[in-house]
Amino acid sequence: MPKLTFWYELASTYSYLSAMRIDKLADEFDVTVTWRPFLLGPIFGAQGWTTSPFNLFPAKGENMWRDMERQAIKYGLPDIKHPDPFPQNTMLAARLATLGATEPWGPAFTKAMYSRQFAQGFSIATSEDVASVLQTLNLDGEALITQAQTDQTVKDTLRATTHSAQELGLYGSPSFTTEDGELFWGNDRLEDALAWAKAL
Amino acid sequence: MPKLTFWYELASTYSYLSAMRIDKLADEFDVTVTWRPFLLGPIFGAQGWTTSPFNLFPAKGENMWRDMERQAIKYGLPDIKHPDPFPQNTMLAARLATLGATEPWGPAFTKAMYSRQFAQGFSIATSEDVASVLQTLNLDGEALITQAQTDQTVKDTLRATTHSAQELGLYGSPSFTTEDGELFWGNDRLEDALAWAKAL
Repeated sequence: MPKLTFWYELASTYSYLSAMRIDKLADEFDVTVTWRPFLLGPIFGAQGWTTSPFNLFPAKGENMWRDMERQAIKYGLPDIKHPDPFPQNTMLAARLATLGATEPWGPAFTKAMYSRQFAQGFSIATSEDVASVLQTLNLDGEALITQAQTDQTVKDTLRATTHSAQELGLYGSPSFTTEDGELFWGNDRLEDALAWAKAL
Repeated sequence: MPKLTFWYELASTYSYLSAMRIDKLADEFDVTVTWRPFLLGPIFGAQGWTTSPFNLFPAKGENMWRDMERQAIKYGLPDIKHPDPFPQNTMLAARLATLGATEPWGPAFTKAMYSRQFAQGFSIATSEDVASVLQTLNLDGEALITQAQTDQTVKDTLRATTHSAQELGLYGSPSFTTEDGELFWGNDRLEDALAWAKAL
């Protein structure tokens, strides 16, 4: 079965749209998706940005939020809410998503974290936030959070994934890569990326 | 008939895609399009950028060119070429496009200038370049260039349009605005913008 890798930063607005759309689309295209959480902060930092470009460039940020409202309507998603602050600190969230990346609960955790942020407007930064999401998935939040915070493999994997993202030329989230090395950036390219993967 | 304003910088890669697609789509949506050339340089400059973000951020730039190649295939356009330098200086081109904005030849001139840049890879910066494009449209290139260079109204209109773009919150090209004040950014939003305009 053809494969596509879905690279996502958990604080990213447009990645929320892809996370909520990708399962159904991947079924339609007969493509297997690998969920790959990474941190965008170090990649932005390398080009001198200390926060999201949506904060650094206010006109771009203002229109992004309006566009997200329109896109949510188009895709039948709940009204968009703004977490405070934006972007959220996603270090713990990304460690949990890394821990779950090859487990059945990983994608469900990711989608629940995005919904908490952008459909409910809540924080996802603290261990209480993360525990609350894990609980809704009937998982042992305390044990998983402890593992994510103490298991050196999890930290190393997240660091290596972020490094790989940068090496592959990723500069934003969501991004999609195919087995032949194509890189697609943005929720608007999800269908194109799946079609490319399928055609290989 | 519903109306949509198409804001474009003549050096912009993705605006080329919109310029080549908008006539057919506007017919399908029954929407009248106003072509509005403006200069992105002063808007980029106001946020501290001295050139295109595709040059300032190399990973983004590299993937943009690859994405343009894929998009050109998708839309049935010729293989993408890179003008040198990129972005081209579009001061004269934008003055001509401003002069023609309300004339039947304006959109044709714009499309020919984009094709010259991105389907042929040629310069559009000099008066010879502009004259050569005007000649292919059976226009009096010398007279029009002289008018664009000397008519204070043309310069004032272009300056005012660029100022309006900034006031409306535009931060990139192409952008689309509707009569009720919605702002859509990017070739990927052309269909959404037309649908919004039609629904008013």
